[in-house]
Amino acid sequence: MQIISHITQMQQVVLKLRETGKTIGFVPTMGYLHEGHATLLQQAREENDIVVLSVFVNPLQFGPNEDFDRYPRNIERDECVAKEAGADYLFYPSVTEMYPSKRTTTITVTSRTDVLCGQKRPGHFDGVATVLLKLFNIVMPHRAYVGLKDAQQVAVVQGLVSDYNIPVTIVPVHTVRENDGLAKSSRNVYLSETERAQAPSLYQALQLAQQAIANGERNPSIVRSIVEKQIVTHTDGEIDYVSIYSYPELEELDVLQGTVIVAIAVKFSKARLIDNLVLTVE
Amino acid sequence: MQIISHITQMQQVVLKLRETGKTIGFVPTMGYLHEGHATLLQQAREENDIVVLSVFVNPLQFGPNEDFDRYPRNIERDECVAKEAGADYLFYPSVTEMYPSKRTTTITVTSRTDVLCGQKRPGHFDGVATVLLKLFNIVMPHRAYVGLKDAQQVAVVQGLVSDYNIPVTIVPVHTVRENDGLAKSSRNVYLSETERAQAPSLYQALQLAQQAIANGERNPSIVRSIVEKQIVTHTDGEIDYVSIYSYPELEELDVLQGTVIVAIAVKFSKARLIDNLVLTVE
Repeated sequence: MQIISHITQMQQVVLKLRETGKTIGFVPTMGYLHEGHATLLQQAREENDIVVLSVFVNPLQFGPNEDFDRYPRNIERDECVAKEAGADYLFYPSVTEMYPSKRTTTITVTSRTDVLCGQKRPGHFDGVATVLLKLFNIVMPHRAYVGLKDAQQVAVVQGLVSDYNIPVTIVPVHTVRENDGLAKSSRNVYLSETERAQAPSLYQALQLAQQAIANGERNPSIVRSIVEKQIVTHTDGEIDYVSIYSYPELEELDVLQGTVIVAIAVKFSKARLIDNLVLTVE
Repeated sequence: MQIISHITQMQQVVLKLRETGKTIGFVPTMGYLHEGHATLLQQAREENDIVVLSVFVNPLQFGPNEDFDRYPRNIERDECVAKEAGADYLFYPSVTEMYPSKRTTTITVTSRTDVLCGQKRPGHFDGVATVLLKLFNIVMPHRAYVGLKDAQQVAVVQGLVSDYNIPVTIVPVHTVRENDGLAKSSRNVYLSETERAQAPSLYQALQLAQQAIANGERNPSIVRSIVEKQIVTHTDGEIDYVSIYSYPELEELDVLQGTVIVAIAVKFSKARLIDNLVLTVE
């Protein structure tokens, strides 16, 4: 695996690879890789000739009161994870390499952001869109792998790709779960023993929603109350939201149809957990 | 020459060409091609394996009171000009092909726009940046050819390419002039006979500026008054602006240094003419 920290070098490498007909799979990350990232890398490995991983903690997507400086970094460990998962290139630029001078333009994400977790992070997705537009031009992938755990981010990226006809296929990858169904997250360690035992109820609640829809329920309010009831009954967590939207548009629905997302956020004493299912309504 | 009106077809064609190592030169236009465009196409022809021309009257770059509907169109004649200049592909999409649905993002050009002609066309360059970002992703050119007649547009495009690391080289092409030095423009026909005889003074004024700078003048105010004096003395036109900025940043300078632009706009009775020179100050 080769580590590249300069934009022009990365571009030269991928241009040459593309000229010889190689397909490129790309996994953009902020580093501190966990099992979820490894799953993305493995799928990229299976479906492409070349796998590129980027590690870049993007200051633009952190709010003024967020933890850019304290965001965990461990490039040595990331290298090991990337190598083991079969990455060919690790793109690891500095902040000044990515943002060398005053920008002359800004990108604003104008829809899909004022719902779910985006409501509370104004400007966050503008930063995500900006860095991904740059990374797509630097890595020039055929396919980019993104985790559905953050389904809103996937929706924003799909909007970006569609708006600007970016020649990349976005591959949403299903959330990796523990054996009992709990979505893997670095935040799960903050759960107390009791909370950890209760936490699989989040996924169970989503599965109840899936079942109800499969059985013909088309009223989003009723599906929402099924989910809420399961969480309230089986956990001590406080519901932040239980939401159902069209996907990837993230618009309100009167009647469930097409592709929809059922998304939940629940606050436990020291951890806020999120989970979702994207479902196709027949 | 092949005419392509669908985005995915254009992308498939260029992806295939790139995979076989062909270089692609691109000339983006709004059609109604004139000699200036032909010059861009000829240079693209000389420097690339494949030449792609796009003809798209971009509604996004017209203001509410501007002439989108009345903008001149003549695709049959454009085809002839493009063929004759040796274009391989003419990309000619419809408005709904380029803007099929609600966009989820916007691009705003935040610098280089509040000077020169941009001052009077708020939002114009946002539309230019949006369509060019799309076209660069659709045509995937190695080089894109843009006329220096609209030097502000070139500066905005260079900012866009730099901001997002777009893997394209912008090739600014010098303004095509009549034998007497007048910059070619479809608006020249609106000049009266007397005005047409006076109009070469615009370029002469720019050349005087160039001489003064070559002779060591570094004070922009003095260079500006040399230009103004030439125009006022030799034409009946009314000066809209005579401006000197750093290039491509388009920022005010106290002392002339580096690359600078001397740009002028002069109103005659029925035509407003613009011209400029981009100069390197030793």
